[in-house]
Amino acid sequence: MRLDAGCRICFEASAPSPLILMLRPRSGSGQWVVREEYVFEPGVPVVEYTDNYGNLCQKLVTPEGAFRVVTAACVETADEIDVQLGAPFVPVQHLPNAVLQFLLPSRYCQSDLLGDLASEIVAGHEAGYDQVEAIRHWIQTTVEYCYGSSDSSTSAVDTVKSKVGVCRDFAHLGIALCRSLSIPARMVVGYLYELELMDLHAWFEAFVGDRTRSTEGRWYTFDATQKELRGNRIAIAYGRDATDVALATQFGPLQLVDMEVWVKPADLETP
Amino acid sequence: MRLDAGCRICFEASAPSPLILMLRPRSGSGQWVVREEYVFEPGVPVVEYTDNYGNLCQKLVTPEGAFRVVTAACVETADEIDVQLGAPFVPVQHLPNAVLQFLLPSRYCQSDLLGDLASEIVAGHEAGYDQVEAIRHWIQTTVEYCYGSSDSSTSAVDTVKSKVGVCRDFAHLGIALCRSLSIPARMVVGYLYELELMDLHAWFEAFVGDRTRSTEGRWYTFDATQKELRGNRIAIAYGRDATDVALATQFGPLQLVDMEVWVKPADLETP
Amino acid sequence: MRLDAGCRICFEASAPSPLILMLRPRSGSGQWVVREEYVFEPGVPVVEYTDNYGNLCQKLVTPEGAFRVVTAACVETADEIDVQLGAPFVPVQHLPNAVLQFLLPSRYCQSDLLGDLASEIVAGHEAGYDQVEAIRHWIQTTVEYCYGSSDSSTSAVDTVKSKVGVCRDFAHLGIALCRSLSIPARMVVGYLYELELMDLHAWFEAFVGDRTRSTEGRWYTFDATQKELRGNRIAIAYGRDATDVALATQFGPLQLVDMEVWVKPADLETP
Amino acid sequence: MRLDAGCRICFEASAPSPLILMLRPRSGSGQWVVREEYVFEPGVPVVEYTDNYGNLCQKLVTPEGAFRVVTAACVETADEIDVQLGAPFVPVQHLPNAVLQFLLPSRYCQSDLLGDLASEIVAGHEAGYDQVEAIRHWIQTTVEYCYGSSDSSTSAVDTVKSKVGVCRDFAHLGIALCRSLSIPARMVVGYLYELELMDLHAWFEAFVGDRTRSTEGRWYTFDATQKELRGNRIAIAYGRDATDVALATQFGPLQLVDMEVWVKPADLETP
Repeated sequence: MRLDAGCRICFEASAPSPLILMLRPRSGSGQWVVREEYVFEPGVPVVEYTDNYGNLCQKLVTPEGAFRVVTAACVETADEIDVQLGAPFVPVQHLPNAVLQFLLPSRYCQSDLLGDLASEIVAGHEAGYDQVEAIRHWIQTTVEYCYGSSDSSTSAVDTVKSKVGVCRDFAHLGIALCRSLSIPARMVVGYLYELELMDLHAWFEAFVGDRTRSTEGRWYTFDATQKELRGNRIAIAYGRDATDVALATQFGPLQLVDMEVWVKPADLETP
Repeated sequence: MRLDAGCRICFEASAPSPLILMLRPRSGSGQWVVREEYVFEPGVPVVEYTDNYGNLCQKLVTPEGAFRVVTAACVETADEIDVQLGAPFVPVQHLPNAVLQFLLPSRYCQSDLLGDLASEIVAGHEAGYDQVEAIRHWIQTTVEYCYGSSDSSTSAVDTVKSKVGVCRDFAHLGIALCRSLSIPARMVVGYLYELELMDLHAWFEAFVGDRTRSTEGRWYTFDATQKELRGNRIAIAYGRDATDVALATQFGPLQLVDMEVWVKPADLETP
Repeated sequence: MRLDAGCRICFEASAPSPLILMLRPRSGSGQWVVREEYVFEPGVPVVEYTDNYGNLCQKLVTPEGAFRVVTAACVETADEIDVQLGAPFVPVQHLPNAVLQFLLPSRYCQSDLLGDLASEIVAGHEAGYDQVEAIRHWIQTTVEYCYGSSDSSTSAVDTVKSKVGVCRDFAHLGIALCRSLSIPARMVVGYLYELELMDLHAWFEAFVGDRTRSTEGRWYTFDATQKELRGNRIAIAYGRDATDVALATQFGPLQLVDMEVWVKPADLETP
Repeated sequence: MRLDAGCRICFEASAPSPLILMLRPRSGSGQWVVREEYVFEPGVPVVEYTDNYGNLCQKLVTPEGAFRVVTAACVETADEIDVQLGAPFVPVQHLPNAVLQFLLPSRYCQSDLLGDLASEIVAGHEAGYDQVEAIRHWIQTTVEYCYGSSDSSTSAVDTVKSKVGVCRDFAHLGIALCRSLSIPARMVVGYLYELELMDLHAWFEAFVGDRTRSTEGRWYTFDATQKELRGNRIAIAYGRDATDVALATQFGPLQLVDMEVWVKPADLETP
C-alpha cells in the first residue's frame, strides 16, 4: 500500500541552537520512497551525513525564534510483515560482522541484567524466531500501554519493574530480552498506518535465520504494542536504542512547541 | 536559486536485465533537496545502497519489455560557485585519508601518462587553485566541444590527441592533469541550469587549500566546458571517473530508447 | 619510549563457545606497533574484522577444554601526554560527523542524568579542555579507587552514588560528565607503563579544540585514576563505553581461569 | 604451512617526500598473522589508516637521504587453494553490494574493450568458476612470462597485443576478462612460497557461487602465472588493479634503490 506520511515540528529557540534531525526515510528492500519533501522555515544551511547505522542525518543551527520543520513522504510499503515461525537461531560465529554490535547492551537496553527473565519467558520455545515471538507476546500481554507513563530516561529494566510504558519502552524491553539470548536486536522508529493516537512510532527487529533463501539470516519486524503484526510501516531510522534514533537531538535552548504527524493512503495519481 | 530538475529514461529489454541506477541527488553542504520523486513503470522491487563514494545506488532487475524511470527533484542550489584564486596546494601528507584515492589514475584518467603536459600547462602558476584554473582554461581553449565526437571508451589520453570531445571528456582530462600534479580530483555528474542542449552534464572538482576557514582544504568546482564558472548546479554522483558515476549501468539485453532531461526554475510555492 | 606489552589469557570451556576478542593494538598517529605477536593454543580458525570504531576484532569458536590466548606487542609510545589548558569547546555544529556519536548516552554513561552534577563541577572553568580537566580532577579527588568494589553492571550513575570504583568506573564517570556538557568523550582500554597492580587499564578521551593546528579539534587523553597525567600508554580499543571495548566478549560456557598482563621497557635491539 | 615472509626496501630521497605504504598483511579467514614486525630507519611519525578495500596503509614523509623500510611477518597460510569446478555464476542482482565495484573497468583492466575476446575464450564453459578457470588457462598458455617486458603503464589491452608480461600483467588481463563477463574480479598482491625469482607477487580473485555453504558466493584465488594453483600465499593488499595496491606510492624525489624479499618456512618455535 502506498502511504502519504509526514510530520510538522515547531520549535522555539531563545538562542541559536545546534540540532540534529533524522527524518528522512531511506529506500531499501522493504520500502520505496516514491516522493519526498523536506522543508525548513526559515531556511538555514544544512549538512546531511550518514551515521554508523546508515541513517541520513541533518545537522543545522536553528535561528533564534520560531523554527518549523516539515517532512512528507509518499512511500510504497509492504501490506504484510514477513513472519517465519520456526526460523532458526543464528549462532554468533555465523552472524554478519556488521550485525554483531546489536548483541551488546545499550543505554536503555541493559541486556546484561535480564538474562534470567528472558530464559523464563522463552522456556519451551525453539531457539530463534519463536523465542522472539514469545518475548513479543509476553510484553504485549504483561506490560500495559499507557501514554505518559514513562519519560526519556526510562530503560528496559525500569519497564520490567513498572510493567507500564509507551511504544519506545515496549521496543527497548523486547530488544534487551533478545540480546540477553544472543539474538541481535535493533530499534526502529517510523510511521505505522492506522496507529491509534497518531504519532511517530517505535518497534524492533530481531536477526534470525532465513528458511526461504540461502543466506545466514535476516532482520524480522516485531511490535509488542500490537496484538497482531501489522504491515504498512515506514522505517525512518535504525539504531541500538532510542539514543541512536532520536528524530531530533538538540544542543541548545530549544523547545519543541508543537508536533503533528500524519499517515494516510496515498493519492492515487503521481504527477 | 531553487531548481526543478529531472529526467525520464525509457528502456526496452528483450529479457529481464539487472540494472544499477545512480539518479538520486543527495543533500549536502552545497545543495538541499527540498522535494524529490523517483518512479519506475512498471514498479519493480528495488534495493538502494550507498557506494564507496557516498552515492545512493538503486539495484533492480527490469522486466522484459518497456521500462521507464522518472526522477524529479526540487533543489536549492548555489547561484555562485566558490572561487579561491591563490588557495594553496595541500601537501599529500596533510590530505584527509578519504581524499587520497582521488590521486590515483583510473580507467579514463591516466594521470601517470600526462605529467609532462600538466607541468607545461601550469608553468608559472602558483601551486594549488591557480594551477587547476590554468588547466581548466587550457582545456576550455584547446579542446573543441563537439557532440558525438567521442564514445564510452574515450579516455583523457585519447582526448589529448584528438583535441575534441564532450563534457565527460573535458572532465576526464581536467582530472587526469590535476592528479598528475598530486592534486586530488574527482568527477561529478549532475544537472546544470541553462546548459545549452539540455542533457545530464559532467564536470570536475579539485581539492586544494581553504583560506577562509581553518581546515586543510576542500573541494572546488571546475567546468572546462564553460567560458565562465556558473552556479546553479545539482550534483547527482561523485567518483573517480565515468565508470563510478554512470547514471545507469546495465547487465543484460537492455536498450536505452529515449531520454529526456529538464532543468528549470522551481515553481515559487511549495505545498 | 618503546614498550613490550602483552597478555596471556587462559579460558576453560565446557562446550565449544563463540568468542570475540579485541586484543590487537593498531598503529596510528599516537603509537607505532613495531612488532606484534598473536597466538592461540590450540590453533583455531579466526575471522578478523574492523568494527564501527576502527578496532580490529577477532571472531572464533573456542574448542571444548583449555584455550589460551597470548598477545604481545612492541610499541613506540609517547612519553608525554598532550595537555592543552585553554583549548576551547568545539560547538556541536563544527564537530566532525564521525565524532557526533560520542555525545550520546550509552549503557554505562548515562549522560542524560548527570547534567546538574557536571555543571556544578565545572562552574567557573572555561568551556573546553579546562572543563574536562576539572571533571578529571573532581573524580580523582572524590571517588576512591578500590579494587573489587564494582562489577560488570556498574554504571556512572552507580559510581556517583557509591563514590568508589576501579579504572573502568572512573572512565565511565568522566565520559558521562563530559557528554552531559556536549563534549564528545570516548573510552579507551590499553596498557599503561608502571601501572600499580599490573593489569589492563581503562581511561578516556575528550574532543576539544586544537590551538596548535588549523583543525576544528582533536582527542585528548584523560585519566582520573592518576594524580598526574602520565604517558607511555598503548591504546588497544576505542568505543562508547565498556560494552564496545570488551577485550573478550563470550557467548558460551567459557570461563576465564587465568590472566597475566605485562608492560616493560622494550629490549634495546630489534632483530 | 607457517611462513616467514618479509621485505626490505631502501629509498634515497633528495628532499623530504610523502610516501604511502601498504605493507601490512591483515589476518582474515584465509590467513592468520602470528607475528609481525614493521620498522623504519630512521624512525619517522606514521599515520596508519584503512582504505576503501580494507587495506592498512601507512602515510609518512621520508627524510632527505637514505630511508629503509623492513617488514616481516610469520603467517599461517593455507596449503591448498580452494577449487570449485562447477561453482555457478552469481547474477548481478544477487551480488553483495560491496562486491559490485569489482565489475567496473579500471586503469589497467579495460573490461569494456575485451568482451569479444572473453566470450571466445570461455565458449563452451559453464558460467561461473569454469569460465574463470578457462580464462586463467588461456592466459597461462598464451601469454609469455618475461621479466622486464612491461612497465608501470602497461594495461590489459596492451598485454592482449604483446602477449608477454609479468605477474601484474597476467593478473590485469585475468581481471579484465572476468569483468567483461560480469564476474567480479580483484587484484591481490602478496607473497608466494617458492616463487621462482623471489619477489612480491600479484594474482587475482574472482567472485562466483559457493556450493558448499549457504551464501551467495565468495572470492576464489586464481594465478595465471602458474601451471597449477599453488597454496601458501600471503595476501598483503586487495584492490581494483595495480593502482589500488601499490606497495609504495610516492609523491616526491624518492628513489627505490634496493629491495629484497624473502619467503621461507617459519622457524618451528614461537617464543
